[in-house]
Amino acid sequence: MVDTSTEHTVRSFDKELARLSQSIIRMGGLAESQLAAAIEAMSRRNSEMAAKVVQSDAEIDALEQEIDEQAVQLLALRQPMAQDLREVIAALKISADLERIGDYAANVAKRSMALNQVPMTEPAHTLPRMAQLVLSNIKRVLDAYVDRDPDKAIDVWESDTEVDEMYTSLFRETLTYMMEDPRNITPCTHLLFIAKNVERMGDHATNIAEVIHFLVTGNKILGGRPKGDTTSYEVVAPPSESATH
Amino acid sequence: MVDTSTEHTVRSFDKELARLSQSIIRMGGLAESQLAAAIEAMSRRNSEMAAKVVQSDAEIDALEQEIDEQAVQLLALRQPMAQDLREVIAALKISADLERIGDYAANVAKRSMALNQVPMTEPAHTLPRMAQLVLSNIKRVLDAYVDRDPDKAIDVWESDTEVDEMYTSLFRETLTYMMEDPRNITPCTHLLFIAKNVERMGDHATNIAEVIHFLVTGNKILGGRPKGDTTSYEVVAPPSESATH
Repeated sequence: MVDTSTEHTVRSFDKELARLSQSIIRMGGLAESQLAAAIEAMSRRNSEMAAKVVQSDAEIDALEQEIDEQAVQLLALRQPMAQDLREVIAALKISADLERIGDYAANVAKRSMALNQVPMTEPAHTLPRMAQLVLSNIKRVLDAYVDRDPDKAIDVWESDTEVDEMYTSLFRETLTYMMEDPRNITPCTHLLFIAKNVERMGDHATNIAEVIHFLVTGNKILGGRPKGDTTSYEVVAPPSESATH
Repeated sequence: MVDTSTEHTVRSFDKELARLSQSIIRMGGLAESQLAAAIEAMSRRNSEMAAKVVQSDAEIDALEQEIDEQAVQLLALRQPMAQDLREVIAALKISADLERIGDYAANVAKRSMALNQVPMTEPAHTLPRMAQLVLSNIKRVLDAYVDRDPDKAIDVWESDTEVDEMYTSLFRETLTYMMEDPRNITPCTHLLFIAKNVERMGDHATNIAEVIHFLVTGNKILGGRPKGDTTSYEVVAPPSESATH
């Protein structure tokens, strides 16, 4: 004999878990399109487009709040265990990372508005390439979540080194531009912070990859986290006095 | 008749919750002392002390992992509800914020080691004041957690504006130093990132204040989050050509 009441409960619980997962995917899509729009606004020097990105961040924040409530309600009413519990905890963690990614996208947009008030500086061309790489990592990590694919997650996790390396070379390049002409200092400072924001978004994609791997396999990704960002220790010397004066 | 088995369960559950709370307080104390040590290392230009801060970050990371596991185990085995569930969720959130604070402290220490390789620049004196304010906010928010005091949490939440304002003026000041002498560019860039790290730690103290307020009252703090950091939009012009050349 089938206990239909239990079956019913189980089914509606699965539905709630699926709904939670759908919310994460929707939030991920939003974060992704916010970053894409921020990059485009920056490349086109379009302040109106940038302002829209800043505005839209509230949507992501609202979605995080919604996911939080969904998750806490699931915990309170369903008291999930084992894999189901991992699903809920993963949703809580991933939504926090996506919220940060959205925040950084809004910050990139804000700073690009400041950049538009001054003439274009050189390293502004390198930055979109780095941002595209991070965007692709965010896309791929969301795919890994949809497919519950730990190997895809490891791929993203590993490719963060490339992001860090691009950031390090951008950091050095930008500092030399600042040294060449004091008029470059304000725009280049904003560029540095934008680049740092983009690098941080890459870190959050890496976090999400770790959460997915744990969610699916129950194990942490083995090996130390790849680290290519060495800018904290960078000392760039200005060109010789004769060259600047 | 007293049901001693239930009483026993309740008591040991309370013990586990108290243990979780103790772990948070211990992690908070560590984060606090990491920031204090980072500030001291920076002020004294002591790279050895800074290296120790970088090393000790692993302890905070390990503690976050431990709290995560404690919380998930509590959720799985005890299936807490209402206030108890809020306690566990709050612990998960606060430990994530404390982990970030620890990370930023390590980053400040790393960058101060880069600073020590070049002569001292002026704004380096303003920074410790700002860092002391953030340190006091972190201390106070941990007190608010220990006392489950929502008013103390609101106090911290409100005083973050002051941190943001200090950061904004430091930002402008640092940019002008960079414009005065290209040799200031590398150290001032590190100073800017250190200041940004400290400002972010303040934001995490604010996050924790929000979590505590919700934990105790069940309500969010009313009113928009105070925001005094306007540096994303700052454009600082270099002094006139005649002054620099």
